[in-house]
Amino acid sequence: MTEQRGEFELIAELAALFEPPDDGLGIGDDAATWPATGGTVQVATTDTLVEGIHFRLDWTSPADLGWKALAVNLSDLAAMGATPGRALVSIAVDAARRGLVLDVARGLRSLAEQTGTRVVGGDTVRSPGPLVINVALVGEADPARLLRRDAARPGDLVAVTGRLGAAAAGLAVLSAGQGPLDPGAAPLLAAHHRPSPRLVAGQLLAAHGVRCAIDISDGLASEASHLARASRVGIEIDVGRVPLAPAAVRLLGERRSRELALTGGEDYELLFTVEERLVDELTRALEIDGGLTILGEVTDRVAAGTVRFVDAGQPIELTEKGYVAF
Amino acid sequence: MTEQRGEFELIAELAALFEPPDDGLGIGDDAATWPATGGTVQVATTDTLVEGIHFRLDWTSPADLGWKALAVNLSDLAAMGATPGRALVSIAVDAARRGLVLDVARGLRSLAEQTGTRVVGGDTVRSPGPLVINVALVGEADPARLLRRDAARPGDLVAVTGRLGAAAAGLAVLSAGQGPLDPGAAPLLAAHHRPSPRLVAGQLLAAHGVRCAIDISDGLASEASHLARASRVGIEIDVGRVPLAPAAVRLLGERRSRELALTGGEDYELLFTVEERLVDELTRALEIDGGLTILGEVTDRVAAGTVRFVDAGQPIELTEKGYVAF
Repeated sequence: MTEQRGEFELIAELAALFEPPDDGLGIGDDAATWPATGGTVQVATTDTLVEGIHFRLDWTSPADLGWKALAVNLSDLAAMGATPGRALVSIAVDAARRGLVLDVARGLRSLAEQTGTRVVGGDTVRSPGPLVINVALVGEADPARLLRRDAARPGDLVAVTGRLGAAAAGLAVLSAGQGPLDPGAAPLLAAHHRPSPRLVAGQLLAAHGVRCAIDISDGLASEASHLARASRVGIEIDVGRVPLAPAAVRLLGERRSRELALTGGEDYELLFTVEERLVDELTRALEIDGGLTILGEVTDRVAAGTVRFVDAGQPIELTEKGYVAF
Repeated sequence: MTEQRGEFELIAELAALFEPPDDGLGIGDDAATWPATGGTVQVATTDTLVEGIHFRLDWTSPADLGWKALAVNLSDLAAMGATPGRALVSIAVDAARRGLVLDVARGLRSLAEQTGTRVVGGDTVRSPGPLVINVALVGEADPARLLRRDAARPGDLVAVTGRLGAAAAGLAVLSAGQGPLDPGAAPLLAAHHRPSPRLVAGQLLAAHGVRCAIDISDGLASEASHLARASRVGIEIDVGRVPLAPAAVRLLGERRSRELALTGGEDYELLFTVEERLVDELTRALEIDGGLTILGEVTDRVAAGTVRFVDAGQPIELTEKGYVAF
């Protein structure tokens, strides 16, 4: 948690160095935006994955790495309600493993083709260190329909697409190692290796009047906290309502799955707030991309900028290892 | 040279994986382009610098590194005749040196402010390896005036902005090490640490009818070869006409300076081809950003896709170490 807090402080200090743009979003949302000349906005994001920190090549194939490097960026565009886009892909790798680059590129291309993303450039450089892959992605959105982190309003419901915990459960399976993998782990490993960014859901949210969303890269708890802080609202989430990945529940049990869903991260589902009157229509619309589950609400009963988690009506405390009742 | 050739092959293989866009330039020019909705084109580029490969932090201050990481990308936009732009800045660094990131950002900001570049996002990640900095930059250009690598035509003259060899001479001074630096080396070190991308020159070239340009990141010889191949033309360059950095000549002598100008790289001047009838007008226009020097011509007398270097009328051969007469 110290590391994370240090990270937020560093980002805040960096953001303070660069004046926020007066014609769009700068540092601090899922992506930056600026107006294009024809009335749309350009939406840009970048993410870097480092070997040994974000992935291990004994657990992840080069093709899966390429897929994931693009997926995490597409997920940022999904969380803005934007369409992809053009991608620049940069890879630093030692000379002995340069052959990997083509496999990484092939995996990345699979997802690019599925999502209408054009890879238009990049940079491949030699490095004596771990493999580092960076994707920068530019998409487009309707400025009136942009999904932002700072647009949650008291009275909104809090909801999530899809189900949570599968990617973290997949990582837990890989970390446990030893012996043949349980066949039941396959969907969890797939969720970890090849996440599907919710681009369709993001555009549907935007089209149906949702204005506040974030993608779940660091775990539900962390992302809910981002929304609460950016929007300066209080959020209450009922952990009993968090939709769990069935394969995780089968393999790891309900309690561990719920902990992973809350704190594990890398699900790349969308967390969003929505006016109650829009929920029925939105529920029908989202059936084609993961569905939605109401988890809680934006409420003045919780201090602005914070998230309260409750389980069967009782407040609980989340820790790095899971959660405990107060 | 093998390494370089390997690099070109890898880029070609990568480029083959990703279908070229039908509405702009993809992999293979200084930057990628695509149409914006209002009649301009978006122009995007990315470059990665790796500690121990592209820079050493005992030779380069973090602020200079930030400056340079943006400069090399701005130079790509200059070589397209584009205006900056929005930048995404990503840094991977070990936990013990995270404090460097703010200094890197400050140096980058200096150049961003001078050039009207907006830093709108990025990613700061932990890495157990060398510091890696990636900048992705998006600018805009008039599609009718884009400077491309493949637009050289027989009969064009070949020209360069500014003077060459200073950055490589600065690196040579740093590599020599030992003892206090010669005060005469200051402009060479500045050229190495804080290159000035020729954004004004690039836009003037575009405005005055030039259509073919490339920035000099790898040395004049290498970049001329890129132009010849991309345009499928022969190029002849008179090495005696290459404009040398005076401080390099004073410190290293004329012959070594000329070798560095031809093969050293990192000058970030613009190499371009121009119709003879435009030269006088262009010479006056470029006075405010480095001036221009005619070096040679695009000619059918040289095999298409190749560059012939001559010195006092005699063909010469360039090697990694310099050049020799045939």
